[in-house]
This record gives sequence, structure tokens and C-alpha cells, in this order.
Amino acid sequence: MIEASHRSQGISYAIRDVVLPAKELEKKGIEILHLNIGDPNKYDFDTPQHMKDALYEAANEGYNGYSLSEGDIDLRNAIAERERKRNNISYDIKDICITTGVTESLQIFLNASLNPRDELLVPGPTYPQYRLITRFNGAEPIAYRCPEEENWQPEIDDIRKKISNKTKGIVIINPNNPTGALYSKKVIKEIIDIAGEYEVPIVSDEIYDDLTFDSKQYATATLAKDVPVVTFNGFSKVYLVPGWRIGHVMFYHSGELDQLQDAFMRIARSRLCANSVCQRACIQALKGPQDHIEKANQKLRERRDFSYKRLNEIEGISSTKPDGAFYIFPKIEAIEEGPWKNDKEFVLDLLHEAHVLVVHGSGFCSTYGKNHFRVVILPRMEILEMAFDKLEAFMKKRLH
Amino acid sequence: MIEASHRSQGISYAIRDVVLPAKELEKKGIEILHLNIGDPNKYDFDTPQHMKDALYEAANEGYNGYSLSEGDIDLRNAIAERERKRNNISYDIKDICITTGVTESLQIFLNASLNPRDELLVPGPTYPQYRLITRFNGAEPIAYRCPEEENWQPEIDDIRKKISNKTKGIVIINPNNPTGALYSKKVIKEIIDIAGEYEVPIVSDEIYDDLTFDSKQYATATLAKDVPVVTFNGFSKVYLVPGWRIGHVMFYHSGELDQLQDAFMRIARSRLCANSVCQRACIQALKGPQDHIEKANQKLRERRDFSYKRLNEIEGISSTKPDGAFYIFPKIEAIEEGPWKNDKEFVLDLLHEAHVLVVHGSGFCSTYGKNHFRVVILPRMEILEMAFDKLEAFMKKRLH
Repeated sequence: MIEASHRSQGISYAIRDVVLPAKELEKKGIEILHLNIGDPNKYDFDTPQHMKDALYEAANEGYNGYSLSEGDIDLRNAIAERERKRNNISYDIKDICITTGVTESLQIFLNASLNPRDELLVPGPTYPQYRLITRFNGAEPIAYRCPEEENWQPEIDDIRKKISNKTKGIVIINPNNPTGALYSKKVIKEIIDIAGEYEVPIVSDEIYDDLTFDSKQYATATLAKDVPVVTFNGFSKVYLVPGWRIGHVMFYHSGELDQLQDAFMRIARSRLCANSVCQRACIQALKGPQDHIEKANQKLRERRDFSYKRLNEIEGISSTKPDGAFYIFPKIEAIEEGPWKNDKEFVLDLLHEAHVLVVHGSGFCSTYGKNHFRVVILPRMEILEMAFDKLEAFMKKRLH
Repeated sequence: MIEASHRSQGISYAIRDVVLPAKELEKKGIEILHLNIGDPNKYDFDTPQHMKDALYEAANEGYNGYSLSEGDIDLRNAIAERERKRNNISYDIKDICITTGVTESLQIFLNASLNPRDELLVPGPTYPQYRLITRFNGAEPIAYRCPEEENWQPEIDDIRKKISNKTKGIVIINPNNPTGALYSKKVIKEIIDIAGEYEVPIVSDEIYDDLTFDSKQYATATLAKDVPVVTFNGFSKVYLVPGWRIGHVMFYHSGELDQLQDAFMRIARSRLCANSVCQRACIQALKGPQDHIEKANQKLRERRDFSYKRLNEIEGISSTKPDGAFYIFPKIEAIEEGPWKNDKEFVLDLLHEAHVLVVHGSGFCSTYGKNHFRVVILPRMEILEMAFDKLEAFMKKRLH
């Protein structure tokens, strides 16, 4: 047997790994209610037609070859224009790079930034790739606490306690995956202050920025003044094309990130480019009608309200109310009373017994995510209702 | 100034790095003849119309969300079918994974395979990413000699000399980038024998497999019998969609690669998926008409013949005759007689003086690629003629 690398042996990805047992059940003809994948296009959300038309047009116009490694110039200009309008930030297009989703922005950035034994402060709980890729670079992700009782807002004192001279960045995900928290202006400013004090950049993941239900999201760079911010964004969620894999990184700084940005761009050149034909279509995403966003938010708001209400009515479950993205992150209050050793067992039990698939909270943070689970609020109301009915029956059965 | 990681500091990519000085000249209004990028769509080659139509259809049918991490099932079935027909190999679709170009296959594979201080045997000269990504994993690429006088076929004795218990794989690129060499059945079999003897897998990059001018390419796995082979392939070159970024990896083995393949798939799940809508269109690439391939080969054959003839007529330049891909890799015989310290200076001088852009050979291997340069034979005949006229005048000027 030829051995795999040591580093690869710890790799697992909660969100996709729970799909494997679900597939086994589906093979037996059992129907599973999927509340696990953050892909709006799997539910009743669809890519705006003008983007599909723009894709075909781009293919016919011959945009099927490589783009510049840094990304299509017109797309970067359109992104810079969006940033001016939405966030009042002026980016030069040389400070923007188009990548294969936020995943690749993150991979390249951490490759460019981390040495072994460095540390990256990540929210607890967090989107798992932040931890995975940090570890893959031999560095250590350090989770700072985002207390549930404060609606999952970052705890500034905990960041201050955990920052050190090994820290290479403070990650924020706003709106947050998996909690759905939308960060307050005050909290963002306090994080900026700490970053400025310790001279570390903020890494701000804003992929869900326009998907909010009660108030607008603040871009970190808008508030950052002289603190450098590396922002990740993209088209997957707000423009309903997760499968197109078009993300981007934006470097906001006055020289502090020159070396890092240069390393990023050199790595970007070595991997050719992001999908060229979809890049062209994303120009039209930004220039064309935007009304699908408010429509999506209306649907999500209704589903959020319903999910929040129903989950809190179920014995042994409680939840905060998310303000953005498309997740809710309930707590298994009754974990001690049930037959489960941990949240993963809970999730697998729920899958096998009730045929409802969610993701275990410890997959997002073993400390601050445990005893929770992530529910995707994207399904239609009748599917959500069916899923919560099943969850309710399941809890009754297990607790009595 | 915030520092970049140590590992990132050595990263450069010859093929894209020479583009930067060319862009500077273009900014001044100077027209550059581009013989540097292996992108057929930049020249007079175009994606077959039925693939563009299939792309639009896929977008309209709703394939804009994530695909399975391992790739669309129908696409993997179509690839397995192609392998049965073309190469007489039976792959189960669980042994195939769709990636963002061969680049990502390579990244994930080397992440899954290499520990620090391991070694990977790579052809000298080689496509630069093999060296870059190996080093990025803390391992060492070891170039085995492919002698020009034997038309750049791998030298078996040199592989035997350099293989050791640190070797984690023998890479072959067939047809080869940058030399255009098509490997003989005999050479492939001899490499298979060494791999079998030392129990290391062959990593076979076959992205140019159907682009050959005089004879057919042999897939390594076809000849491998009981030696494990990891094959990289994709749609970029043969199906004229380099910007779509659809590649794939195929694991051929009887259990020896189980651990490696499992690690590969776990990493693949952590990065979501390759572009879903282009994956769907690539199904039609395989199922639809294939006549564009012979048409491309006809054009390339003519351009290869012309390039080979013209380059050998130029004083101070000589070249072997490529059999596949779309490159020719001439030698700067007169490097000692000119004003250039090395091939990179030659390439930059040619760019600034004659406005012809090629890539320096040492970018592909500092030992076995030096004093050469890579020319892309994709341009139309009149462009090639203009470029060679300019090269000829340049050489005359520099040598007399």
C-alpha cells in the first residue's frame, strides 16, 4: 500500500462528510430531507436569466480561453465599481484578484501568509475551511469565542486574550456561516482596533453580504481606516451561482500588505486563472438588474422566521435568530438527556431515524460549536415544516 | 510591512512572468507577437459550437449549483466510456475525480502524497507546476534527463540512477510540454518496469493526448498491467476550452493507491467542486462530434512542419521535430556568441528588440531546459512567418 501524506490524514469536511451516510440511505430508496448544503440552487432559487444569457453570449464571443491570472479586467472594474457604490471604498483593479470561489482565495492567501506554527484567529464556530487550510499550512487556527447568548457576536475580550505575536490575521465571517449572525458596527470597529494595535490584517469573508433580513451588512474595509483588510467575496451566494466557482479577493491597505499581495499574485499566476466564461457572465451579474436579491431575502426572511419559531417550540432544542446568510444554528439543549454521546451522533441518529440531514456543530468548532447543529433555511416552507415535524417527533421519541 | 510566508517567496512561473514586461511594451503601443501561451483559443482555434450550446442548455436546465465534489456523475461516466473506447481501460467512476483543470488535480494529488523531504521524479524539462507544487509541499522535484539528441525521450538509465526510497512518483508528460515529444511505447514500458520494481506510482499527464501529428499517443495505464498509474487529463487542450478549467484525475490500480485515493477524495470534498455548468457541457464534448480534433491536428501539423523548417534555417538556432502538443523547443546554439548571459536574457532581448514573446527554457528546467526557448506553434502561418523573420533578423544582428 502506498501511503498518503501525513498532513492529508487529518482532513475531513463535516459538511460533505455527512453526505456519505445519507447517500447510502438514498441508495436503499429512502427519501432524505436535505437541510445540509448551503447551495440555494438546490432549492427554489435560480440564477437570474440575464446571467445565463450572458454566459452563452460570452461563450459565443470566444471567452473560452484563459483569462488573465488576476482575472478579467472588465470584471475587476465592475467589482471596483460595486465597492465604490455599496461600500464607499476605492480599489485599484490591481488590488483585486478573481479566484475559483472563496475557497481558492483562502487557499492562496493562507499559502502566501502562513509559516509553520503561525496562528490565525478564527471565529468559533467557523466555516471549516478556515481551520482545515490553516492546519494544512502547518499553522494553528485559534478559535475566538462568539457567545450564543450575545447572538453569536465575536467576544472582543476573547480575541484580545488570544492574539499574540504569532497571529497572522483575524478572520471574521459576516454574515456568519454557520450561525447566521450579522456583526454590529460596534463589534467590527472593536476588532479593527485590536488588529491595528497588533498590526495584523483582518481577513473579512463577506460572501453573504447582501443576504440580510433586518438590516444592512457593513463591509469591514469601510470602517477600517488605516488598518489593512483582506476581503473575500464572490458571486456564489448573492448571485445564485455557487457552481460557477467565481470568487474574489480585495486588498485594502496603504502598503502594509505589499509583500503579501505580491506573493498572492505570484501564486495566482502559477495556477493560470478562474473560469473565464463565467467571469464574463459575472460582469452582467453586477451590471444587470438586482431585483433577485430582494426577492431572495423575502423568501429567506419568511423561512428564517418560521424556522426560528418552530425550532424554539421543540422540546430539547433552542435557537437564536439569524440576521443573514441562510443558516440557523440551534442548540441541542437535551444532549445530556438523549442517547447521543455528542452532536455528531445526534445528527446521524436524526438522519437514520427521521431522514433529515443537518450538519453537526462540532464540525464548525469542537469547542464553541459542539452540542449544536446547522440547519440550512433554504428549502420551501412545506419542506421546512415537514423537517421540523420530523425533528419534533424524533426528539419526543428520544427524550421520553 | 506584513511579511509573506517563506514558502511563497520562491514562487515564480516563467510562462506568465514573461508576460509582465510584454505588457509594459504593449502599454507603449508596441505590438507584440505572442508565441508564449499554450492557449489555442487565443489563436484561430475555437470551441466546437455544440459545446457552447450545451453550456447554455446546462445553465438553463439549472446546473448552476454545486456538483458532487468528485464531479458530475454523467461526466465521469462519459469519461469512463472514453477510456474504454480509446485506451481499453475500465475505470469505475469512483476512481475518477473532476477538478479545476489539471492544475488542481496536481495540487490535490501532491498534497495527498508528499511529505517534506520526499522526492518526485519529473521530466527535465517539465511543465513548471510540477516543480513548483512539489516544492510548495516541502518536497524535492528531481529532474530526470530527456536528451534532446533522442528527440527528448526520457532517458531510462537516468531515471534508474535517480530513483530512491524517497521517490513518491515518476511523472511523465506525454505528449510533452515544453518539448512536444511523443513518448514511444518502448520508453513508456521501461518506465512502467522501473515503477513496478520500486513500487512507486506513475503520474501520467496526458492533457495533450489526442493532439499528435504522425502517430497515436499511448495512454500509460493501457500498458501498465499491475503497476499503479495516476492519470491527469482534461478538456482544455483537445476540446479547446482552457478557460473552462475542467480537468480530471483517474486512479488505475488494484488497491495499492487506496489510501492515496481516499486522501485525494477527502481533500476534494473540502474544496467543494469544479465548475458545474462547464462540467455538464463537457459531457457533450465527449458525446458530440469529434471532427474538430483532426482539423486542429491538420493545422498544427502544417505549423509544426513550417516552424521546424524555419527554425533550423536560422543561424545559431536548431530544433528537434515535435510529434504532439503545440510546442517546439529550439536550442540557442549561439548562446556563447551572443550578448546574453542566459536564455532568459535572450528571451527578454528578443522581446524588446524584435517584439516576439517566447518562454525561456530554464523556466522549464534549469539543468535540462537551459539555452532553449519554448515556442507555441498555434499562431496562423503568416504570424509564425513574421515571428521567424523577426527572429532571423534579430539573430543576424546579434551575431555579427
